[in-house]
This record gives sequence, C-alpha cells and structure tokens, in this order.
Amino acid sequence: MNEFELIARLTKSLPTNENVVVGAGDDCAVLDLGVPDKLILFKTDAVVEGIHFTRETSPEKIGRKALARCLSDIAAMAGTPTAALVTIALPENFDVEFVAKIYDGLNSLAEKYGVAIVGGETTTNPERILISIALLGTFPRGKQILRGGAKVGDAIFVTGELGGSLAGRHLEFEPRLAEARWLAEHFTVHALMDVSDGLGGDLRHILNASKVGAHILKSAVPISRAAKLRARGGDTTKPAFVAALTDGEDFELLFTLASKDAVKLVDAWHKKFPGLKLSCIGKIVAGEGISIRDKIGTHTFNAHGYVHFS
Amino acid sequence: MNEFELIARLTKSLPTNENVVVGAGDDCAVLDLGVPDKLILFKTDAVVEGIHFTRETSPEKIGRKALARCLSDIAAMAGTPTAALVTIALPENFDVEFVAKIYDGLNSLAEKYGVAIVGGETTTNPERILISIALLGTFPRGKQILRGGAKVGDAIFVTGELGGSLAGRHLEFEPRLAEARWLAEHFTVHALMDVSDGLGGDLRHILNASKVGAHILKSAVPISRAAKLRARGGDTTKPAFVAALTDGEDFELLFTLASKDAVKLVDAWHKKFPGLKLSCIGKIVAGEGISIRDKIGTHTFNAHGYVHFS
Repeated sequence: MNEFELIARLTKSLPTNENVVVGAGDDCAVLDLGVPDKLILFKTDAVVEGIHFTRETSPEKIGRKALARCLSDIAAMAGTPTAALVTIALPENFDVEFVAKIYDGLNSLAEKYGVAIVGGETTTNPERILISIALLGTFPRGKQILRGGAKVGDAIFVTGELGGSLAGRHLEFEPRLAEARWLAEHFTVHALMDVSDGLGGDLRHILNASKVGAHILKSAVPISRAAKLRARGGDTTKPAFVAALTDGEDFELLFTLASKDAVKLVDAWHKKFPGLKLSCIGKIVAGEGISIRDKIGTHTFNAHGYVHFS
Repeated sequence: MNEFELIARLTKSLPTNENVVVGAGDDCAVLDLGVPDKLILFKTDAVVEGIHFTRETSPEKIGRKALARCLSDIAAMAGTPTAALVTIALPENFDVEFVAKIYDGLNSLAEKYGVAIVGGETTTNPERILISIALLGTFPRGKQILRGGAKVGDAIFVTGELGGSLAGRHLEFEPRLAEARWLAEHFTVHALMDVSDGLGGDLRHILNASKVGAHILKSAVPISRAAKLRARGGDTTKPAFVAALTDGEDFELLFTLASKDAVKLVDAWHKKFPGLKLSCIGKIVAGEGISIRDKIGTHTFNAHGYVHFS
C-alpha cells in the first residue's frame, strides 16, 4: 500500500462539522469560521532527516524548506499565509546552535512573507530530526480554486522549470504566493495546485478530481537545467523529460483556464513576472489519464509516473 | 539545556503580525482573523512511540491520546475545538490495520467533541511512529483566560486527582472542555491552564507569567488512587504526594479566581459536575515560587519539580 492508497483509506469517512468547506484531499483544508469576507486555509507539512534533508544540509536551509513547502500549499489555493506553529522533534543530544539556525532560516522566510510564528513544540525523536509546520492562511470568500475545476478545452499551464530539484532547488525554491494571488485576481483559473510530487503525478490529481484527461506536448514541458545536466552527466538513467515529469519538489504552480484566456494570460504574465517562465504545456480533454505527444506520435503516461512508449 | 530553556531561546524574537493576540508561551496561540465575535485558538501537539506510548499500546488509545492532549490545550483556554489536521510519520513497513485503528480512536474522540478532521499528512519516520495534531478552536472575543492573570489573594483550584497517570489514565483521560467553558461563562477566572507536566511545574508557569507566588496546603492536593497504590506497592521511591506534583499527563484544569468567589464556585461545581472532584489547594501570594505547608511546617518546592524539605 503506497502513501496515496493509505490516505484514501484513512480519509474515507472522517468526522466533519458545519465549519468545513473543503476537507481532506486538496492542497489545504478550507474552513468557514465566520470571517465575513474570508475563508480560512489550514495545512500541515513535515520534513524528515534522511528523506527531505540530510545531516549535511545547512540548518538554515532545513528550516527554510520546512516552511516553504507549507507556503507553497497556501499558494496552491491562491491564499495568503497568516500564522504558523513549528513542531520540532529532536534526538536527545541535539546541538542547540544547529536548532537555533533551523529557526533562523524558518523565521527569515516567515518575515519575508508576513507569517507570524506563534509557537509550537519541541519533542524527542531519538534517531532523526523531524519538523512539522502547521500553517493558517486566508483567501477571499467565493474565490476558491480547487483541483476539481478543470474543464474540457482548458489550457494547462505550469510556472518555472521542472525536474532536478534535488541538485539544490528543493532547499531554495520560492513559494509562488504572489503569482497565484495575481492569477486568481485577474483570471478565471479553473484548477490550481502546486507541483510537489512531479508534474506527472500531480496533474493526475487534477484530472481525477475534475474527471477529465490531458494531452501534453512534450516539447512544451519546461525542463530545468539541473535535470538536463544530470541526464547528460550520465549519473542517472532517467531522461531529462522523465525527470521533469517525475522528480518532484518543484513547487511550481500547475493550473488550467479556458483556452480563450490563454494568450491574454501569457501577455499579462510576461509584463507582471518577467523573471519567471510560464509555459502552456497542453490541454484538458474528455476521458482520463495523460497522453504525451512528441515527434513520433502519442504515448500514454502510466500511474506510477514513468513514461511507457506504446 | 532542557526543553523549557530551548523553547525560551527559540521563542525570544519570533516573527509576528497584526493577527497575533497571543503568540508562543501560553497553552494555545490566539489569533484575530476578523471573526466578529470570536478569536481563534491554534495549537499543535505530538506523541512519539517509546515516549508517549509503546508498541504494546492499543492503536485506538494511541490515536485517542494524540487528539485528547491537544483538546486539553483548547480546554486550557476555555475554548471550543473546531478542526484538526493529523500528521502521522510511520516506519516503512507499517501495518495498515494498526494505522487504521489509530485513526479509529482519534476519529471517535473527534466526533464526541464535534471536531472535524480535515486532512493532514502521512510521512516516513523509519524507527518509530510519531503523530502530530494541529488543532483550531475558538472562544468568545474578550473572554480569554491566560496564564498571566493570577492575583495575590486568589484561591488556587485543580480538578480531578493528580499523579500516577502512567498506570493507564494518560491513555483514557477526558479533556475538560465542558468544565472550562462553564467556568469561563459563570466565573471570573483569573488564570487557567491544563496540568500536563505535573502540578508543580505547571503551577510555576502561572506564577512566573503572573509574577506571584503560591502557598499550597499539602493535605488539600488531590492524590490519585493510582499514585497511592504505586507508592504503597514499593515499585517507586516517589511518595504519592510527590507523584501528584511531578508525574505529569494529568490533563486536569488548574486555575485561580478571587477568594470571595471560591465558596460559590464549589457549591455550583458540585451541582453541575457531581462526578468530578474540585479541590482548592492553596492561594496566590506576593513573591515567587511555591511553598508547601504540611503538619510539620512550610517547605519550598524547587524548580526541578522535586520537593526539598527545608
């Protein structure tokens, strides 16, 4: 049983109440706590030593990453982050300076995005450091953009470049908060999420939630320099395109909107965010699953994230 | 450096913003998100295998305890819990049934208290299970009861009985949500918290935050049957009274109010909650620290939680 199957089983029948607008299954939970013009976003995310960072990672970058991942989920709902709690589980003989530097990295990212750190907890995890962030955010009532809103004919867009994040970007990425808010304010975005598990897997979440399929144009997928270098260097058997679809930890925005808005968006984007690439990588179609078109023909992309040329 | 010293260092200069009413340092953070008649409570709490439960603990009780601890913090602010996120970190070869039963225990307590479970995360912690709960709650605007409000002359009260929780109660305690809300509605409570680290240590948090001291009457401290049995059984060198002050995980309410309200409170309490003991254990005095009066005289109680008879 993998992570997604476990989550599907555990979230089958969760307790709910009248405050819940969106429960488990999207980038954040959405709650109505009675703020007249806003709904509340609620999210947790954990990083674990040996999985999301190593003992050699600089502590400032560990703290930064822990919060940045969670901020990316607020971006994925076009929200504004408000306040976070930090749970840090430490081996017994922790180095106080190391832990203080984790907080330095975390705090300085929090300050950049106006997020208050309002407490949390230290506890013991004897073998490795684990940091869990709980984050609250808000967005304008009536403006929610979920994974399930993609419509047949929509253009599919992704920001930035994908793949090869492990070479360094996973510790330094910028959560796309301003970009997502601008999108939500100026365009009718149908579906939105952040790319955390790889474009291939994450696009599938939008498709499944929206009950549609996608055609992707291989040449349109923006592949990072890191993924290309890695593929060329021979230290992986993964072609750069497959890396772009499956590496994960890109933390870029993936979204769909009506094709008729696509040109207007691209023009406006280049003026507003000249430093950040925006790529139209394909379109939403009837049916299910992902098919990828290249010079040879059309191929299907399977559930485990690897391309099977058929 | 112990947990409290580390927390003091890490929370010295945290980023804040205009939404923060109470940051790190009380039972919950308090936020003003613009709900007209309410403020928001925000809390996280983690339980770790080998520390808060063992591999032999029934999974339902593990899940129940994880949420109950967090609910007790909402009670400590006289709040009402609303929604929780569950982060569960698991060894790679976890038993799916075991994890499902953790959720069963957690969900059934959530349902009892009207708490929605709105998602969370599963991640990997190779050596042991760790569960972190993030919880939101609310309380009526203007009705907050913090640790720092105790006044000289106040009577000090504690609910239930203390000590020996490890014998079983730490897995089965009931968060005192209804009791705390009733207290806040009917009495002017000056300081309130839940007893999680032992009466001795937790009372000190109230005293330090309020800049006062306390006189405790030894014979008035309610000692649990479990603590008495354990002391009599000879499997500990800790006298039952010391256990009541230092064992921790009692999750009872500790609070102070004006002495003039004490008799009225005791009368009303016995009518409202006939099944739950309420004990007046002493009074708030000028100065600092805890002194304990018994038949022999008055003794001071030191910062490490152990009684030094002087």
